[in-house]
Amino acid sequence: MGDPAGIGAEVILKAAATMAARRGAPSIIVIGDLRAMQATAARLKKVAAPREWHPGEIIPPLRNGVGVLSKSNLSLRAMRPGHPTVEGAGAAYDYVVTGARMAMRGEVDALVTAPISKQWMNRAGHRFPGHTELLAQISRTRLWRMTFAGGDLTLALVTTHIGLAKVASTLKRRNVFETISLLAAHLRTKFGIARPRIGVLGFNPHAGENGLFGDEEIRVIAPAIRRAQRAGIDAFGPLAPDTAFIRPGGKFGFDAAVAMYHDQGLIALKTLEFDRAVNVTIGLPFVRTSPDHGTAFEIAGKGIANPSSMIAAIEYAARAAVARRERALRRVAA
Amino acid sequence: MGDPAGIGAEVILKAAATMAARRGAPSIIVIGDLRAMQATAARLKKVAAPREWHPGEIIPPLRNGVGVLSKSNLSLRAMRPGHPTVEGAGAAYDYVVTGARMAMRGEVDALVTAPISKQWMNRAGHRFPGHTELLAQISRTRLWRMTFAGGDLTLALVTTHIGLAKVASTLKRRNVFETISLLAAHLRTKFGIARPRIGVLGFNPHAGENGLFGDEEIRVIAPAIRRAQRAGIDAFGPLAPDTAFIRPGGKFGFDAAVAMYHDQGLIALKTLEFDRAVNVTIGLPFVRTSPDHGTAFEIAGKGIANPSSMIAAIEYAARAAVARRERALRRVAA
Repeated sequence: MGDPAGIGAEVILKAAATMAARRGAPSIIVIGDLRAMQATAARLKKVAAPREWHPGEIIPPLRNGVGVLSKSNLSLRAMRPGHPTVEGAGAAYDYVVTGARMAMRGEVDALVTAPISKQWMNRAGHRFPGHTELLAQISRTRLWRMTFAGGDLTLALVTTHIGLAKVASTLKRRNVFETISLLAAHLRTKFGIARPRIGVLGFNPHAGENGLFGDEEIRVIAPAIRRAQRAGIDAFGPLAPDTAFIRPGGKFGFDAAVAMYHDQGLIALKTLEFDRAVNVTIGLPFVRTSPDHGTAFEIAGKGIANPSSMIAAIEYAARAAVARRERALRRVAA
Repeated sequence: MGDPAGIGAEVILKAAATMAARRGAPSIIVIGDLRAMQATAARLKKVAAPREWHPGEIIPPLRNGVGVLSKSNLSLRAMRPGHPTVEGAGAAYDYVVTGARMAMRGEVDALVTAPISKQWMNRAGHRFPGHTELLAQISRTRLWRMTFAGGDLTLALVTTHIGLAKVASTLKRRNVFETISLLAAHLRTKFGIARPRIGVLGFNPHAGENGLFGDEEIRVIAPAIRRAQRAGIDAFGPLAPDTAFIRPGGKFGFDAAVAMYHDQGLIALKTLEFDRAVNVTIGLPFVRTSPDHGTAFEIAGKGIANPSSMIAAIEYAARAAVARRERALRRVAA
């Protein structure tokens, strides 16, 4: 459900209402606060009232409404849209921990996380840089990467929320290779692409033009690509960053790409696929996605939040979960 | 005409043939080699044969064909497509110098440059990092910036062809301010926008989130924006780079934008407007544009070069030249 003062509950309910009419819609339970979900539904009209769901019960199909695993009993103050509280942030933390444990135990096929506030998580006494780091810790995952998907563009980032001036010294053959390798494994296991083609971006303008503008391509990126190729991965590059996202004939030249820094990937993705961008964590032992927006406290409670990214996050998670199950079934059958 | 072994002559002739049918098409003369232009026209068919033009003559309308100011008498070897020579590169250098001088003297309203090869210019004994630097030198311009335009997106770059690791230390309040100021002046004088809105991008992810990921926004960019505002320019930012190019309602939030580094601007521009991107130099005493591609020696002579960017470059130059003339007329009338 994310932070109770944010737009999490609203975009979940709007997404559920939109998706309920579709064939093959996934079944959803919300890990959050029953009364907060009901209050949001009452404000929104046009969405089904959430009902309590208890562990062990069958998850109801989406057309029958949204089940809520209620992990808190929030005060009215903590439910007020747009007014974050320590109480609400603390509850949001518990929702994430519960969700991650359920995913680890296979009680759900995938985890979709609604936005939390880093700042308010810290005020509530939880010292974590973000959602993804918390999930990695709970699942004891050493190697993971932030990935973004929208339309037919999937992008893994070698570095994320650090100053751009620090990126050059942070790029190493090892972390570039690991990103390529995690992304290839993700496409293979979660999407059944037997031999994904991974495009790897350069770091400098024109990918450095043979060392003329920076040598990160020569020292770091090209060797990491060669290592991936030796490991049987169909990786190629370094690609000139500014022309990598052009689609001659409407198609990218790769199944997915590795970007060296945040804006290199996200300028292209958000420019092309704004509403539909989804955050995907690769490397975790379960499927995890989240919408590509924050808590948006400033518009919470107004009924105007756009559910497109939440819909895309749920759909991506559902597709990946289905592919993963089919793969597991094939393995049992073999 | 650019390098005689490149695609310059071909894209010029194709562009002229396409534009000749349009109302209000500009009149063009090519500064280059008459025989090379004629040989290219013969290979292409479907384009009018170029005719010699001499200084002082009226520039013929485009529907009557393309006039050539012949500045060289190239050997057959130097005209061979795809095989650059020192002779051809030396001639290309002379074309640029001639064009710049004509533009300085007002004999032409604008200069559009076809691609040259930096490497072959250097082999021919001319030590220049590129076209733009040469034009700045000829016109004794101290302050200029590389700008790109495509569709309704115009972008000036504070830094261009340097390694990304060096950008942070190259950004100064002064060069950011100068870029904002040159861009505002360009839109005012060349496009008649009385008070252009200039969006200024940040440098770090999320524009640094108040110093959390880098402080270039706080130390350099925000002060430069404030200085521009004090100088009467409607500048704003620093904008989060990844969301700056989203167009709610199909429109950018600015008339033009300032990007801190090459790929920050060009990833967005080429992703959105690949074929139509035009390189514009702002700060020169004349209008100068060029297509956003290189000599493409590898496809020269095959007849397959795409003239879209050359057409866009000529059209942009023509629009800017008309606006500039009208402004001058208004000043005389006032």
